[in-house]
Amino acid sequence: MSAEISVKEISRRRFLNRVGQGLVAANLVKAPFLKAAPSQALAPDPPGKKLGWAVVGLGSLSIHQILPAFAKCEKSKATALVSGHADKAHKLAQRYGVDARHIYNYENYDAIKNDPEVDVIYIVLPNGLHAEYTIRGLQAGKHVLCEKPMANTPTDCQKMIDAARAANRKLMVAYRCRYEPNNQEAIRIVRSQELGATQTILTNAGWHIDNPDQWRLKQDLAGGGSLMDIGIYALNAARYLSGEEPTEINAMMYSTPGDPRFKEVEENINFQLRFPSGVLANCSSRYGY
Amino acid sequence: MSAEISVKEISRRRFLNRVGQGLVAANLVKAPFLKAAPSQALAPDPPGKKLGWAVVGLGSLSIHQILPAFAKCEKSKATALVSGHADKAHKLAQRYGVDARHIYNYENYDAIKNDPEVDVIYIVLPNGLHAEYTIRGLQAGKHVLCEKPMANTPTDCQKMIDAARAANRKLMVAYRCRYEPNNQEAIRIVRSQELGATQTILTNAGWHIDNPDQWRLKQDLAGGGSLMDIGIYALNAARYLSGEEPTEINAMMYSTPGDPRFKEVEENINFQLRFPSGVLANCSSRYGY
Repeated sequence: MSAEISVKEISRRRFLNRVGQGLVAANLVKAPFLKAAPSQALAPDPPGKKLGWAVVGLGSLSIHQILPAFAKCEKSKATALVSGHADKAHKLAQRYGVDARHIYNYENYDAIKNDPEVDVIYIVLPNGLHAEYTIRGLQAGKHVLCEKPMANTPTDCQKMIDAARAANRKLMVAYRCRYEPNNQEAIRIVRSQELGATQTILTNAGWHIDNPDQWRLKQDLAGGGSLMDIGIYALNAARYLSGEEPTEINAMMYSTPGDPRFKEVEENINFQLRFPSGVLANCSSRYGY
Repeated sequence: MSAEISVKEISRRRFLNRVGQGLVAANLVKAPFLKAAPSQALAPDPPGKKLGWAVVGLGSLSIHQILPAFAKCEKSKATALVSGHADKAHKLAQRYGVDARHIYNYENYDAIKNDPEVDVIYIVLPNGLHAEYTIRGLQAGKHVLCEKPMANTPTDCQKMIDAARAANRKLMVAYRCRYEPNNQEAIRIVRSQELGATQTILTNAGWHIDNPDQWRLKQDLAGGGSLMDIGIYALNAARYLSGEEPTEINAMMYSTPGDPRFKEVEENINFQLRFPSGVLANCSSRYGY
């Protein structure tokens, strides 16, 4: 029953391993988010200073969640916006108290290098643009927090990690679940085996995707369908609970025929993982909840 | 991602199809269990008559569940016992009011043909013995209710169906879930699509198996591990909810190394199904709950 690992699966496994490296690197940066490591030439934060963030990409996530959240932060504030839509950027800058001189577009983005108000760049662009704007941000001498998934390919992930090392700047992926207290407690219970050895992990994640024109449904921008966007939570939950990386993967995909949303990327994908300790996982990912 | 169907999977698929035929045949017999079909030479039941049942195999299931349940039945009663253990059979016969003249062993089992008190034979033996005792029971002119799973191989299942047809007697598999009101309502909701089209079915079944010496852990008697015994509920739930037979199967097995219970059969098996309509299922089967 346990099939040989196919080329595709090896490729995915290597992808996971490399993403894993990125996450380990990211783990170095915990709260307080940018406490300087001794190896870095950063001075300690002055008391009361808020870190300045440039938010790159003003889509729904930035408008409805990230900018409102920054407005409530004690140790961070949005100090710059980067967008291809000047009108939208100016409106949001006004609403959140960002000086208009700190609005950038994708052409003059690299000039952020000279902006002393920006400590960290937050990449909230479609997945297919993560690598380019992360690397340009690191090369501008800024730390980067990049939305999940890290990038569309392992090669791009590696380039981002290399760029962070070359620039001696922090790179973190905005995957937060493993820091939430409920999840940390679940991870502790499972790994401590206080309820016995884990045998099977069952994880399922999905949401109902709507507008067929959005970037999440374009292969070049999204890098995949529901797995890249929401199924990643099912995948990562299995990885974090087991504390291992999978060595075998089976999967089945299905997209509703003729559905205009799923011309380029998959709707649903059910997958199975085998971990080195013998733990199995059954996971599912859906855009059709 | 969707692999070619392997030989093993085709074999399993054919197995499912054939079991399916058995179940369809079985569906002809509903409550009241043995209302005679017009094509059969059975007279209508006289008012108040209870059907007489021979219980074959006096293991835990018969002792703790089946015989006590018969004692409460309005339309059925245990009238004969078949066992290799004469002592046990006599004790149980006394407890449940079975006349000692209707106690059989596996050598004189076929003499049940001449026992007018027996209308139906209930096969409660290890899986690997189902085919032989079902076929002998049908050849004795009795109807047969056979415990699940039907048998260890599709070939044996087909022989049982053929024997029932040749004897013009009913053959039913004692898989009851699809007749329970809660499950019937779940099946109705899913198939009616009143909550939308089904995309993924998630089913999991397991129990903690103990004594390493029991027949369920012997390959020749059980025909397999947790899947044959308890995972079959996860499999059948997916089949009944979808109303379809799977066309592709992926699976991963795991048994704890060195565990004396799992020398011959599998402990855990996670499997995925694809149905013709596109519905996917993620299922798991465990002996290690």
